[in-house]
Amino acid sequence: MQLHDIARLIGVVYEGDSVEIIGLHTLKEANETQLSFVVDAAYVRDLASTKAAAVIVPSALASQVPQGCIALVSEEVYLKMAIISKAFALPLLDKSAPAPVIGEGSFVSPAAAVENGAVIGKNCTIMAGAYVGLHVRIGDNVTLYPNVSVYPYCVIGNGCIVHSGTVIGSDGFGYAHTKTGEHVKIYQNGNAVLEEEVEIGANCCIDRAVFGSTVIKRGTKIDNLVQIAHNCVIGEHSIIVSQSGIAGSTTLGRNVVMGGQSATAGHLTIAAFTTFAARSGVTKDVKESGKTFGGFPLMEQRQWLKLQGKIAKLLS
Amino acid sequence: MQLHDIARLIGVVYEGDSVEIIGLHTLKEANETQLSFVVDAAYVRDLASTKAAAVIVPSALASQVPQGCIALVSEEVYLKMAIISKAFALPLLDKSAPAPVIGEGSFVSPAAAVENGAVIGKNCTIMAGAYVGLHVRIGDNVTLYPNVSVYPYCVIGNGCIVHSGTVIGSDGFGYAHTKTGEHVKIYQNGNAVLEEEVEIGANCCIDRAVFGSTVIKRGTKIDNLVQIAHNCVIGEHSIIVSQSGIAGSTTLGRNVVMGGQSATAGHLTIAAFTTFAARSGVTKDVKESGKTFGGFPLMEQRQWLKLQGKIAKLLS
Amino acid sequence: MQLHDIARLIGVVYEGDSVEIIGLHTLKEANETQLSFVVDAAYVRDLASTKAAAVIVPSALASQVPQGCIALVSEEVYLKMAIISKAFALPLLDKSAPAPVIGEGSFVSPAAAVENGAVIGKNCTIMAGAYVGLHVRIGDNVTLYPNVSVYPYCVIGNGCIVHSGTVIGSDGFGYAHTKTGEHVKIYQNGNAVLEEEVEIGANCCIDRAVFGSTVIKRGTKIDNLVQIAHNCVIGEHSIIVSQSGIAGSTTLGRNVVMGGQSATAGHLTIAAFTTFAARSGVTKDVKESGKTFGGFPLMEQRQWLKLQGKIAKLLS
Repeated sequence: MQLHDIARLIGVVYEGDSVEIIGLHTLKEANETQLSFVVDAAYVRDLASTKAAAVIVPSALASQVPQGCIALVSEEVYLKMAIISKAFALPLLDKSAPAPVIGEGSFVSPAAAVENGAVIGKNCTIMAGAYVGLHVRIGDNVTLYPNVSVYPYCVIGNGCIVHSGTVIGSDGFGYAHTKTGEHVKIYQNGNAVLEEEVEIGANCCIDRAVFGSTVIKRGTKIDNLVQIAHNCVIGEHSIIVSQSGIAGSTTLGRNVVMGGQSATAGHLTIAAFTTFAARSGVTKDVKESGKTFGGFPLMEQRQWLKLQGKIAKLLS
Repeated sequence: MQLHDIARLIGVVYEGDSVEIIGLHTLKEANETQLSFVVDAAYVRDLASTKAAAVIVPSALASQVPQGCIALVSEEVYLKMAIISKAFALPLLDKSAPAPVIGEGSFVSPAAAVENGAVIGKNCTIMAGAYVGLHVRIGDNVTLYPNVSVYPYCVIGNGCIVHSGTVIGSDGFGYAHTKTGEHVKIYQNGNAVLEEEVEIGANCCIDRAVFGSTVIKRGTKIDNLVQIAHNCVIGEHSIIVSQSGIAGSTTLGRNVVMGGQSATAGHLTIAAFTTFAARSGVTKDVKESGKTFGGFPLMEQRQWLKLQGKIAKLLS
Repeated sequence: MQLHDIARLIGVVYEGDSVEIIGLHTLKEANETQLSFVVDAAYVRDLASTKAAAVIVPSALASQVPQGCIALVSEEVYLKMAIISKAFALPLLDKSAPAPVIGEGSFVSPAAAVENGAVIGKNCTIMAGAYVGLHVRIGDNVTLYPNVSVYPYCVIGNGCIVHSGTVIGSDGFGYAHTKTGEHVKIYQNGNAVLEEEVEIGANCCIDRAVFGSTVIKRGTKIDNLVQIAHNCVIGEHSIIVSQSGIAGSTTLGRNVVMGGQSATAGHLTIAAFTTFAARSGVTKDVKESGKTFGGFPLMEQRQWLKLQGKIAKLLS
């Protein structure tokens, strides 16, 4: 899409030539064919080093846009980005993509649906009602149980098992908001990736990233009814117990354990080998590894246990 | 169904002629062809003004039944209503209903199932494994992702997006209880309605109403794994974050925000522009709009934060 | 499978002949054709009376293995058992099993999938996208709504209703852990059983047992998005409200009520007619029936209410 068409779409006038834009990305990750955006001053450092072809930027920061990068100045950066994201939305279907490729020894139920461009490895079992979307890549020895849905462009590594009803790559929950309180969808143009030997229980949701990938790393095991939001990274060999939720852009180190019905806020970083007791509400980063936490707000589990004793005494 | 057959079904003798009854409804909403019921004295005012053809009523309130309305007297009103509800249960299938109508420019996957009587508008995308039940009405520009289920008689407005695994119009959780502790299903003979531009994430449940409609109003956005119980009304442009639950008959005003894993009790009314922090347990009505709450039991969020500070001091 | 092959698989040398082993089970339940295991000294009494053909046992307890039972000595009992469990994993598909049998008056949608060996009773309704696995047994008058998944070998009693998206018999969440922090799947070789007149809402997960059965007893009603873990037994006429979770091997008596978003720890026993308020976190057995509890940690509900009053005073 031409930058002058993008500018027209969002009602912004800019100085300079047009260029071909083929995608959106963060300031850090954008390349010379991509458009990026600067929400506020917290991103000034990323702005200085961005390789993006152009950025949407509030007027107060326009002077910080590096040379060679075109500034689209707007006071509604996030909203403009949302509007543009639709133009780069991934297709759900594509008749022109090649027919699916199914590896040797794989069973694909006639009642499964596999879209064009999908590649399924060897010795897989794709059961009835499973959905394998456009350009999905599935490794070897993978089992998709009945009624699993894998959205377009997602990746499932060797040896993964995904149980019934689970959804891989549904849209992350992202909207920009108008002044009158309406919500404008930010199209989620990344994907979700399961590395090798991941097992995911029934009726879980692993959302796709807004840009880049939501990643479940090697050997992680997830119970039923778990929510993993967009752009999370779940470290290797983690254990996520039923009905837990990880909010957007949170990163867990390896061998993190989340107890049942626990949850994290978004944009957190959790050290490896951390354990969260059931119902933990993780409200802050965990920097030291190997500790056990509980409660909401979060504290060390032994503190939480002690605190419950103190609280009980209020009754006496 | 003839009223004398209904009376026989529940073992009640009444005075007066029979009439044709074509449905059940609340005292307020019932019309001259419907049967209603009076659970207890709290409904006496509604009873006085009801237009119902007949009511099931405990003997203590039988004298309050208005003229022209036939009283079926029973001390087990709720249980009798449950028994009758089965006779009015909506069909799941109907070979005599007209073939589905699919609007111009709509794609319906050959692996989707669309029942008779369904009407799908223009430029829709109905993906593999999606289920569109009997007499469902779907507007224009709607996307149903793979393995979405839409129960009979539900309505989905223009521009809605429903992600995989979500269920629209499943039965509300309603039972009458016998003296010996058994539960008798109250058939849920209403529907669920999504107004325009609603987006619902993956693996959510939007239950149908027992009578009338569960309604998700225009522009509301719902994350994954959310429960909306029967007869809820979710106001325009609300935001319901993952793993939240709204219990039956609760009404949210416009632009209400429910944080992750929050929940409400049933039969509450929440003012517009209210925000509930993550994990809020909403135990009471909110009358003043624009405030932020948290905790369980519910309090203003700043109070909750202050309280956590006080509680932490118990440890010192 | 020959015991000497099993021993070789897990790298254990034992004294004595080989025998044919046809399954795994607990010390209590194993019969003369099965292999069992002793995790630690807490199981010594069960070991003394086991009928298992052989047991995996740590060296410290090897002397307690009863005569006629062969000891496979290992310090990594649980891990060895996990490795062996794969050899006894249930098949998902079996072309040699008989074609499904569908009872008189039953409707099976052409868009449903019914595997070999399945038996469906009379007057059932199996809707589009529903999956009935290998050797599943379904009684009379059962309704499976669209996109329900029933895993192999599960049993659904007469008069059950299962709503869309619900998964019956998915794998319990069980792994053994290596010294380097990897997780080895314990194949879940039991099943899940719904007795008569059970109704289960939308998008629930009822996991299959590791050995034996997860059981939902007669007349129990379960709301949406509920998690029932492996080897639970839910008593007759219980009520489990939306978004609740019951952890593994917990047993509820009859007429237990679990409020919304409540949860139990695993391996608990709850007396009949117990009520848990919404959000209860059940951390201990309940021995006396008929009481009402709330809070996390759990206490009597009236105590919890009183405690909230005391806590609120901290603010004054």
